[in-house]
Amino acid sequence: MRQYNIELEPHRLPDHWYNIAPDMPGSMDPPLHPGTMQPLNPDDLAAIFPMGLIQQEMSTEPQIAIPGEVMDIYRLYRPTPLRRAYRLEEALETPAHIYYKNESVAPSGSHKINTAIAQAYYNKAEGISSMSTETGAGQWGTALSIACQMFGIACQVYMVRVSYDQKPYRRALIQTYGGNIMPSPSDTTDSGRAFLKDDPNTTGSLGMAISEAVEVAAKSEGATKYGLGSVLNHVLLHQTVIGEEALLQMAKVDEYPDVVIGCCGGGSNLAGIAFPYYGDAKRNGRSIEFIAVEPTSCPTLTRGHYAYDFGDTAKITPLLKQYTLGHNFMPPGIHAGGLRYHGVASQVAHLVREKAFKAVAVPQNPVFEACVLFARTEGIVPAPETGHAIRAAVDEALKCRDSGEAKTILFNLSGHGHFDMSAYEAYLSGKLTDIELDDAVLDAAEAMIPQVSV
Amino acid sequence: MRQYNIELEPHRLPDHWYNIAPDMPGSMDPPLHPGTMQPLNPDDLAAIFPMGLIQQEMSTEPQIAIPGEVMDIYRLYRPTPLRRAYRLEEALETPAHIYYKNESVAPSGSHKINTAIAQAYYNKAEGISSMSTETGAGQWGTALSIACQMFGIACQVYMVRVSYDQKPYRRALIQTYGGNIMPSPSDTTDSGRAFLKDDPNTTGSLGMAISEAVEVAAKSEGATKYGLGSVLNHVLLHQTVIGEEALLQMAKVDEYPDVVIGCCGGGSNLAGIAFPYYGDAKRNGRSIEFIAVEPTSCPTLTRGHYAYDFGDTAKITPLLKQYTLGHNFMPPGIHAGGLRYHGVASQVAHLVREKAFKAVAVPQNPVFEACVLFARTEGIVPAPETGHAIRAAVDEALKCRDSGEAKTILFNLSGHGHFDMSAYEAYLSGKLTDIELDDAVLDAAEAMIPQVSV
Repeated sequence: MRQYNIELEPHRLPDHWYNIAPDMPGSMDPPLHPGTMQPLNPDDLAAIFPMGLIQQEMSTEPQIAIPGEVMDIYRLYRPTPLRRAYRLEEALETPAHIYYKNESVAPSGSHKINTAIAQAYYNKAEGISSMSTETGAGQWGTALSIACQMFGIACQVYMVRVSYDQKPYRRALIQTYGGNIMPSPSDTTDSGRAFLKDDPNTTGSLGMAISEAVEVAAKSEGATKYGLGSVLNHVLLHQTVIGEEALLQMAKVDEYPDVVIGCCGGGSNLAGIAFPYYGDAKRNGRSIEFIAVEPTSCPTLTRGHYAYDFGDTAKITPLLKQYTLGHNFMPPGIHAGGLRYHGVASQVAHLVREKAFKAVAVPQNPVFEACVLFARTEGIVPAPETGHAIRAAVDEALKCRDSGEAKTILFNLSGHGHFDMSAYEAYLSGKLTDIELDDAVLDAAEAMIPQVSV
Repeated sequence: MRQYNIELEPHRLPDHWYNIAPDMPGSMDPPLHPGTMQPLNPDDLAAIFPMGLIQQEMSTEPQIAIPGEVMDIYRLYRPTPLRRAYRLEEALETPAHIYYKNESVAPSGSHKINTAIAQAYYNKAEGISSMSTETGAGQWGTALSIACQMFGIACQVYMVRVSYDQKPYRRALIQTYGGNIMPSPSDTTDSGRAFLKDDPNTTGSLGMAISEAVEVAAKSEGATKYGLGSVLNHVLLHQTVIGEEALLQMAKVDEYPDVVIGCCGGGSNLAGIAFPYYGDAKRNGRSIEFIAVEPTSCPTLTRGHYAYDFGDTAKITPLLKQYTLGHNFMPPGIHAGGLRYHGVASQVAHLVREKAFKAVAVPQNPVFEACVLFARTEGIVPAPETGHAIRAAVDEALKCRDSGEAKTILFNLSGHGHFDMSAYEAYLSGKLTDIELDDAVLDAAEAMIPQVSV
């Protein structure tokens, strides 16, 4: 009897997040204050984040306990299933064993809610009654809306205008979950008004929306705090519940991955599946190949600069050491909106820099080809972002077919694609183009990266 | 520790479907041949269904074994979780215990795939390489497409034209799953051409699409068979895996329902959750209130006639004894497309007639109110059809709040609403109207019900 789904018993839900900070190779460069360009103090962040999250951001403890109130809401959908992709393996005629962690079963349909619940909890615990955030493709705005709803906190979502206009159903979803949504740039913030003055017809960008959401928190005198859906250490930390579960589930079927794969925009879903395995392999002297997969149209890790840069367009966020295409890089309009960010988490960047993680870039047509194959074999329509991880997993499995190796491949199925069917429609009707950026385009954007010497 | 999800161990997946036929109260009137108006023989159905399904349609065995090949694909998503709606109970301040069977986790997002897999299997087993079907809202066309894909069978879907035009994403989903989709009425069938001749601008109806899909099978000389997503005995039979699992899961937490609720269009998801409990209660001398919930805008069970009627508009299907609004009744354009059928399964109709099941009708605004409350508390956005069951469950729970009774309420969460966000958008912006049909409208449609004396 095939056991497709390897479930974890409810009482075995991990009670801690894994903190990679003490396990990091080499030493990491600290975040910098955007005004002084000096290393950031915890207090510098207090205007926009609650202290519980700032402590996690800077923590060097190897594990951080998950609060009971967070565990309680995690139990609505966690542990998520680990699935053996038998039917995909058959279709590929590969001797590889392919496993995926199915985060698409989460409320809001992606891993994003793992940190949204934690962020809403820590804000609520410090008496905050309102959060602001930005969203591009919409997954993060959806997740934070439902999480805030569950803790009785108001949620203000700045949605990149082009997505706001093009995705009425995503908008309706956020509203159904109780979020208050505003197209960005808007006239409700100084930065928004400045962007609109520059270009009244701008379609907006994630960098602009971040500027607006951060400004709302910074100017609220403590009433509103800001929530970010990726990039920061504490966000990556919250996602490690994914990999902590996967470790227990893989052990149940006596498997250990040779390859661990995640798609990579800001880096949080990759970190979620990969960091706990990184720590486990290090402790137990095992070897795993970690692969971060990004689009060729936004090649942060494979073609970006390793440098300090801002997280937003208005340059009001701290500077993080990272791979970056430049903070005002405007990526082409590909369908994996969650992978269109100019930068990446410092922790992920550092691991790539240290060659502990490998980065690959793939074009969107091969991604959708893998998505359709996956849907037809495994029954789940993946998000285009997730499709990048599937593409890489398929490529690894095909290498195994050629070599005869029976590698064990694990990837993170970070979300479903139910709100991305226009992308599937475009792919199925042959309308998608694969984009390879000119060096000149990248050079122009990278020229805007600030010169910093610490 | 709250245990929201009551999982069933994979090895306890039921290995049989429950057949209600031998447990039926009273005696049932047989289906009739549409030409002779005489009781149907198995051979009369052989042109459109494989013999394996025809045998199930007429079986009086109390249980029917689920074939291993079907079990194998069921294991991709089954057993589905049974969930205790703690957070909904809290929001309602009710002493009631509310449970729901979460069929929304199935590939394609609804219970429909439970029978689609079985139908594809029995067709494949008899050497059929192609199936035809109709779809209205799209759930059934999606389910049969992925099921056919898994057995290597071609799938031709006639989609009601108004849905085909209004729901490009549902169309893309069916194509992603490998289905071949055609708006109905089309010029590919005699019945389609006749409908178009009557009215070239017709928006189509489920009755018309059934006529086309049945015609394709009937004229294919055995190459193509037809698949129906509800109404027939064998379809209801395949759905009983839902209730069989629920029996085992409720027993794990030592609960037995006082009330079992399902929304009711053709009747298959209601039957899936309710029939096994009907049989169990009968065997064990227990008492359960069964509630079928339909929209006030298509009030088949609450305001229809109990009579023989056709299943389709062109009158080429067998006549079934049922509650019916008349086979050419055109329901108003409400958002629960799956509940817009003029008739209902004979078995469900018989149980309502015998007062073993109760029927209630609810308007769409209160349904969406319950949907939004459910999304915000339980995290899942339900399909509008499913919202009817939720509305009734909420109403029962509110009665318990008033009376102080701690009833145990079980309903079937038949599907998610990810492809129905336009309906949520309409509700949230106050654009939905509640429809109460005039007697004159119903009388006119019911005048078309054939006069049959057996």
